[in-house]
Amino acid sequence: MNKWFKFLYLPIFLLFTVGKAQEKLTIGEKHSIFSKVLNENREIWIHLPKTYTDTTINPAKYPVIYLLDGENNFEYFTGLTDFIARTPYADIPECIVVGIKNTERTRDLTPTKSQKKSPVNPTLTLFADSGGSENFVKFIQEELKPFIKKNYRTQEYSVLVGHSFGGLFAINTFLMHPDYFDAYVANDPSLWWDNKVTIARTNDYLEKYKKFPSQKSLYVSQADNEEQQKNWNSDMTQAIEEFKGIVEKNGSLNYKHSFFKGETHGTVSYPGNYEALKFIFKGFRTDIKQLAKNPKLLEEEYKKLSDKLGTEFIPSETYLNVVLKFMKSNDFKEAETYFINLKNKLYPKVR
Amino acid sequence: MNKWFKFLYLPIFLLFTVGKAQEKLTIGEKHSIFSKVLNENREIWIHLPKTYTDTTINPAKYPVIYLLDGENNFEYFTGLTDFIARTPYADIPECIVVGIKNTERTRDLTPTKSQKKSPVNPTLTLFADSGGSENFVKFIQEELKPFIKKNYRTQEYSVLVGHSFGGLFAINTFLMHPDYFDAYVANDPSLWWDNKVTIARTNDYLEKYKKFPSQKSLYVSQADNEEQQKNWNSDMTQAIEEFKGIVEKNGSLNYKHSFFKGETHGTVSYPGNYEALKFIFKGFRTDIKQLAKNPKLLEEEYKKLSDKLGTEFIPSETYLNVVLKFMKSNDFKEAETYFINLKNKLYPKVR
Repeated sequence: MNKWFKFLYLPIFLLFTVGKAQEKLTIGEKHSIFSKVLNENREIWIHLPKTYTDTTINPAKYPVIYLLDGENNFEYFTGLTDFIARTPYADIPECIVVGIKNTERTRDLTPTKSQKKSPVNPTLTLFADSGGSENFVKFIQEELKPFIKKNYRTQEYSVLVGHSFGGLFAINTFLMHPDYFDAYVANDPSLWWDNKVTIARTNDYLEKYKKFPSQKSLYVSQADNEEQQKNWNSDMTQAIEEFKGIVEKNGSLNYKHSFFKGETHGTVSYPGNYEALKFIFKGFRTDIKQLAKNPKLLEEEYKKLSDKLGTEFIPSETYLNVVLKFMKSNDFKEAETYFINLKNKLYPKVR
Repeated sequence: MNKWFKFLYLPIFLLFTVGKAQEKLTIGEKHSIFSKVLNENREIWIHLPKTYTDTTINPAKYPVIYLLDGENNFEYFTGLTDFIARTPYADIPECIVVGIKNTERTRDLTPTKSQKKSPVNPTLTLFADSGGSENFVKFIQEELKPFIKKNYRTQEYSVLVGHSFGGLFAINTFLMHPDYFDAYVANDPSLWWDNKVTIARTNDYLEKYKKFPSQKSLYVSQADNEEQQKNWNSDMTQAIEEFKGIVEKNGSLNYKHSFFKGETHGTVSYPGNYEALKFIFKGFRTDIKQLAKNPKLLEEEYKKLSDKLGTEFIPSETYLNVVLKFMKSNDFKEAETYFINLKNKLYPKVR
């Protein structure tokens, strides 16, 4: 081929390549941070909510959800938080999600050193490397949280979410360090661990402090008992129900327990996390049509929610913009004026 | 600064930059395809399941889920399909998800030309540009599906998933073109549309064909009536229940209707899609511990499922590898031999 022809073909080829170049759909970034506490690198998956980089609003701050077993749950969980935080019918505020990938799962998530013979093959001993949860929570509190706070715009409200051993870890953290997180989610937690040591710790807690902190939230999901019998830990159900009994008898906590019929240990996190988030932020959703009639309702409801959660939540600028658009397009003049003033008060700096 | 100093600093700067480079977490790719039928470009979001690019197994084929309102549902939905398709406790086969982004939503998803006065502001007329669903389904059937089949390894089983107007579209497609998809999911479908024209079409269908096809699946979710009253379409509930009555009276279809207490029109898709997928593929999950005692069970259950769904499903190579590993590590020798033979039969070419 004549070299001039080659030259002429080049731009066409380039155009074609560009036309085929596909945009990736991304939901987060992997970060690697070295933990001095654990003496190893830890992979962290970080998801930022939709409005995080929106330059038409003032830079907002977001609650942070720390998600254990990140590699198993990150994708549907970040889809969930974004989906139910969509205006105007948001059930929760937009959140930053921090997924923590496992290295030595049993080591990190169990509170004591304990072993168990495999119920399938009794010649095998399980969980030899257990009992490291105190170290792991130290990593989260002293290394991971400061890293997140330093690099992202975070609100002072954080949630810890775990399943199975991760649920055990969440409840143990709640008992040993209740101030570390504002809300704890435990999906089908392995409270059977080490002769129910966490049940003993629950009783110890109540003996020492008399009651649970009222502004903390704890959500526990439980898989179907009948299905559980097929699993290896048939004492799981019994331990979860014992825990439920103790906590319900001491009703100070913002606590919910949900039993999921038909769900197995492996699937219960999916509906469990959905219920958990709706439970923790119950009262967050406001009805835009009600606001047309009674604009003050918005601040009243945020005040109630803030009191319940022990942290100040205010309507996001994005939500106020949606409210304003609604009032304007439907000609609710009084409400529109009210929300213009509210927006000016909360977000004085126009972008 | 001395230019040699500058030069020395350069590699340090580069190292730092590389150290900070983060790996993106991606869940799919955006594609743009030109539709002759619609005379416009359409953006398609494509998610491939985890094992799609696994080079240690033979290239597998996957069912395809066509997801309407792609931009609203793609993230949690693809997280869901991956999460509940994880071995060994998979409830569904791994699937390819094709999200279709809207351009003119009302035009594409409604079956007839119809208008409605805004219940909030009666001077506004809604849905002026409606009635294009026949064109839109032609685009899916004649342009999008061939594109997907040509570019990806697809199994001959496809699902159509929609919400609200998308649910209306799914049910209308089921009635007008039942052969286009194998399963249809309609979350809180807008069956009130145009004086319940779809209810009339349901009756027409039954008059003409006497019964619904038994190997097709239809799942309908319904949001909470009490919450619905706050929405704009209070006739939505009534129409969905009328449809339910007609379909249940003609019990040939693989049909499920779920009412979700406490869910709103905006949130019901999240639990609805989860229930829908579990319903469609009910019978897919096999208990690996049962297989140790009765290895033949696996093929028997896949045969049953295939008969029910009218398409042949076989155990994936990935699942057989997990089964084999389980049998080997727990010393179930007979079962191990059985599954080695089964794997050789189904996947003769070793990778």
